Formats: sequence, C-alpha cells, structure tokens
Amino acid sequence: MATYSVGVDLGGTNLRIAAVDGDGKLLEKITSGTEVQLGRDFVIGEMCNAIESLVAKHHGSRRLTGIGIGVPGFIDMDTGTVMRSPNLPDWLNFPVRDEIERRLSTKVILENDANAAAMGEKWLGAGRDVDHMAMYTLGTGVGGGLVLHGRLWHGMNGMAGELGHFNVEPEGHPCGCGSRGCLEQYASATAIVRMAHEAIARGEAGDLAQASRGNVEFNSRVVYQLAIQGDASAQKIYRSVGRALAIGVGGMVNALNLPMYVIGGGVASAWDAFAPTMLEWMKVRSSIYSLTAPDRPEASKKHTLVTRALLGGDAGLLGAARLPMLEHLTHTEATRS
Amino acid sequence: MATYSVGVDLGGTNLRIAAVDGDGKLLEKITSGTEVQLGRDFVIGEMCNAIESLVAKHHGSRRLTGIGIGVPGFIDMDTGTVMRSPNLPDWLNFPVRDEIERRLSTKVILENDANAAAMGEKWLGAGRDVDHMAMYTLGTGVGGGLVLHGRLWHGMNGMAGELGHFNVEPEGHPCGCGSRGCLEQYASATAIVRMAHEAIARGEAGDLAQASRGNVEFNSRVVYQLAIQGDASAQKIYRSVGRALAIGVGGMVNALNLPMYVIGGGVASAWDAFAPTMLEWMKVRSSIYSLTAPDRPEASKKHTLVTRALLGGDAGLLGAARLPMLEHLTHTEATRS
Repeated sequence: MATYSVGVDLGGTNLRIAAVDGDGKLLEKITSGTEVQLGRDFVIGEMCNAIESLVAKHHGSRRLTGIGIGVPGFIDMDTGTVMRSPNLPDWLNFPVRDEIERRLSTKVILENDANAAAMGEKWLGAGRDVDHMAMYTLGTGVGGGLVLHGRLWHGMNGMAGELGHFNVEPEGHPCGCGSRGCLEQYASATAIVRMAHEAIARGEAGDLAQASRGNVEFNSRVVYQLAIQGDASAQKIYRSVGRALAIGVGGMVNALNLPMYVIGGGVASAWDAFAPTMLEWMKVRSSIYSLTAPDRPEASKKHTLVTRALLGGDAGLLGAARLPMLEHLTHTEATRS
Repeated sequence: MATYSVGVDLGGTNLRIAAVDGDGKLLEKITSGTEVQLGRDFVIGEMCNAIESLVAKHHGSRRLTGIGIGVPGFIDMDTGTVMRSPNLPDWLNFPVRDEIERRLSTKVILENDANAAAMGEKWLGAGRDVDHMAMYTLGTGVGGGLVLHGRLWHGMNGMAGELGHFNVEPEGHPCGCGSRGCLEQYASATAIVRMAHEAIARGEAGDLAQASRGNVEFNSRVVYQLAIQGDASAQKIYRSVGRALAIGVGGMVNALNLPMYVIGGGVASAWDAFAPTMLEWMKVRSSIYSLTAPDRPEASKKHTLVTRALLGGDAGLLGAARLPMLEHLTHTEATRS
C-alpha cells in the first residue's frame, strides 16, 4: 500500500496542514487561522481535529507514516517540549509531543519551524542534490536550519540551527533573545521596516516617508518596491541587509564549509535587492568563501553556493511531512538517497 | 604486532615529530626548529629525514599505521594542498601530501593544525567522553576545529572549522584574512599584546607601560601576570578577550548546540582572567547557552560545557598521530568508540 504522512506548519498567523506522499506530492492542504490567544489547549485541539479529518479521508487508500509538526521556538527533542517561543508563551514546559501523540495515537515528530523548512528545501527544493546545507528563513524573525548528511543537525537536544542569532553588530539593536545586534535585527522583514522608520526619522527618506503614510500596509515588500523603482534610501536598506547576511552566512561558511547556503522566507523575494551586496561582501568577510566562490574557479574545484530557496511558503509544511518518512529509513538508506 | 603512528606538528617556530601508540602513549618525541625561510623543499626534506629516523628506530617491534601532519593554513583535503597559509607562503598550489607520500612510501594525512589539536583533545583530553565538540586554539592566531560523531568535520573540501574568523566587531581591527574584527583580532596572544600597546598609547596603563619597557619579552603572559597581580588595565584587556569569546563561542552554541566547547592554546593558561567574563556574557549572547548552562540545571537536563583544554602544547601532535589510526577504523567502529 502507498504511504503518506501529514505535515503541520504552525505559524503565528496561520495553521497549515497537509497530506504528502512519499514522492513529495501534496495530496491535500488545509489552511486556517491560528488563534494563539485562545490558549494552548484550544490550538492543540483544533490542530488534532484537522489532522484527524485529513487522516480519515485518506484512510484505506494509503498507510500513514506519521505526523511532523513545525512550531516556532526552541524544541527540546528529548522531551518533546517547547523551551522558548515568543509566539507560544503558554506552551512552555508542557509535554506537547506526548499530548498530541496521546490524542492521535500516532507517532509525532515535533520540530522547530525553520528546521522543517530546511528539510523541505533539502528534500524537494534548492538543496535536493547536496548532502549538506544551511538554510536561513528571513521572515518576521530569522530562523535557521542545518542539514548534514541529509538529516537535520539537532545538536545535543534539538536546539541547533539558530542562525538568526548570529551576532553581526555587538552593540547593535536589542534582540528578543536577550542579546543585541543579532542577524535577525538586520535581515528580517521586521528589521527592514524598522530601518525604514529609522531612515524616515533621520529625514533621509522622502519616498519611504510618503509610502509609510499611505493606505497600504507599510511592510518590507513596500520598501522593496521602492528599491526596485530606484529609491536610494530603500536600496541602502537592502544593501545593509546584504552586508549583515555576508557576516552571518560568511561566518557559517568559515565554520562549516558546506556546499550550499539557502536563503528563504518572505524577504528572499527581494533577492535582487540584497544578494549582489551579500555575495560581494562575503568574499571580504569569509576567507573560505573567497577561496570557493563560484566566480573564482581557479581557486577551488568545489564551490560554495549561496542561493534562493525554491519552495516558497510550503518549505516548512513539506519538510514537516518529510520528518516521519526519514524516521523510517535507516541511516545508511537516508545518506544514500 | 603492536601498532604506532607518527604525528607531526609543523609550527612557524618549531617542528615536532612523535611516535605514538594506539593507546595514545607517546613513545618518542623529536623537536627541532622550523627553518621556513629556507624554503618549502628544505622544510619537507628535514621533516622527511626526521620521520624516517623515527620509523627506523621502531621498525621491527611495531607496525606503522601511517603519518599525520598538522600544518598551519587552509588545507584542500581532496588535493592534499595548502590553499592559504601566512606562515608557509611558498607551499601554496604544491602537492605537499603526494610529495611526502612519494618520499616516504607511506600513507600521509595532511591536516590543518587546529583541526589536529581538536582531534587530540577529543582522543585523550577534555573531549574524550563526548561525541561532538568544538575547539578553539588561542595562540599567535585563533584556530578552530569541529569534531562531530568522533570525527573531524571537514566540510566539502577540508576547510571547515575556521572559528577564529568569526566576526565579533564588524568595523573592528583589520585581520590577515581580509576581513575586519575577527575573533582572532580580540582573543589571540597577538591581540592581547596589541590591546596592551593601545592601552599604553592612551596613557591608561602605567604598569603595562613599565612592563613593556622592561628586559623581559612583552607578551600575553606578562599582561596576564599583571592581571592576576591586580592591574586594572591588564584585567580589562582579559575581560575584553572574554567578551569577544562570548560572541564567538556563543554563536557556535546557537548554531550547533554541541555538548562541549574546548578552549586551548597558550592564552588558555590565562583562563581565570577571561573565563568568568566569557561565561557570564555567553548567557546574554547565546539563548541556547542560557537554556543549557551548567549552573541552570532547571532549564535543560543536558548542559553545554565550555572548558579548558587538557593536553597543552601536545594536543596537535597527538591529534595528528591519531588521524591515520581513524582511517583504519570503519565508520561504525569510530562512532562507537
């Protein structure tokens, strides 16, 4: 019998659930609002109901491999608990994974949402032909995930891959993590809007000021629109995003020497506004990148690729669905695939 | 027949060669000066002669497993060449490994010196009971090495582990790598002496100024001596070393969530002058460390240890000797050990 698994992407705004077959084909997708303010038990109840209705539909024709759930926050993989999450404060120190397994009587894998997105891009996206990659998800915050030998690198208890909290400015903008100057404060959608407001406050940015007073929601896309229309202040903001990423990604190139670094999340759609600066500065910020850059074929036969994610908003959902499938493979099978 | 291997630590000043048995016992050690200024062929010739005399002595009683050589610089593992090295400029783009193998008719493993030191600490030192660790070697520069599943993590072509070029100050002191503000510029012995001279130039440091005019060589140990004698300027320098390490090590804790980070090299003997600041600041700079710090047992059952290296100056030599032994183990055996 053919198999399938269920992937869940629990975001701050939307709850998305999908049935996905072993080849990565999306059989069905359900999207609803996440009502986090109604509390943990409500959200878990809604999620379990939606999963059960999806499973009931596919029951009989396919065998369920398991359920993978991506949630924002630091996950302790040993205990299946959320250790820290700005979006899910009342989930802390609660055995989320065990509770969901109990309700659904099925194996559940709880995973950080950015790790799930990294697995999605590894499985079906930009990283499908490499064994090792790092992924940066530039959204409201900056998430990260590491794939080594085809599997997520969890570290000792599942909290690895927090690449958004790489320091890029030691006395920089305060970060929700308690530090200052994290990459997240210079390369997220939130940071782009903040930098636009800072430019407006300095009186440097007439067009940005006008846009911020308009009827449309003033977000990082609006800043990008102005940048591609030639507005110097908006372009400067995206160049600073590129320089921050050069330090962050360049540091990881120096540390891990992976063949691929994937940039995803909503901000990645502004690739042409920040990537040229990022790639140029990476040669300065990372010796290893400068020795392996694709446009320097004389230096090394193997190249470091820094590239856009391919799966858009579905990376996390598809990656979450992949997780129970990998549990069913032996280590040898997984690294061969 | 019992086995042994030969480890080589080729430094900018000294060439050290040792015969080491399978249990890590040092059978014999030869130390001589490295006459790098006489050129590549001379140094390789001296090294091969010393190795051959060592092998001739142990021939008959033990079987040689192989030769491991740690050299300063970025090594391309595929080609066995040095890609970049401030100390060995005329070694670049020369097939060093093949040349040595040809002369000695034995399997040779060429490795970055800091990677070799990491392997030494993993085998016989601070990391002997963990599967995964990162090591920082604070010497003239700052080297790094990553051990994952008991093996060195090389990345795609052997250049991984450059943890000394983690950025800690984006517009900071220029670094030999071409970037600015690398950890190496704030936590190496060279950096400590530079910061002392900067403090003297600012007129802040009377005792340091006096020491720098003395007959004794003015190095990081002299600054440390003043720090433990209570000199405020010297203490301030070591606290800044601690803060820089907190950003560098903290960033790697966030990225990799390893159980252990080992600090070695000559500067590590000033542990009590920089470590309290480092450990305090890591809780601020790294969310993952703050959730897993050993003095916060309520947060996580597993703890992140940041600790001193145990093998002193022999780490690189012993680690280099270990490399050919690991080549002889299967992957399964190695990860089990």
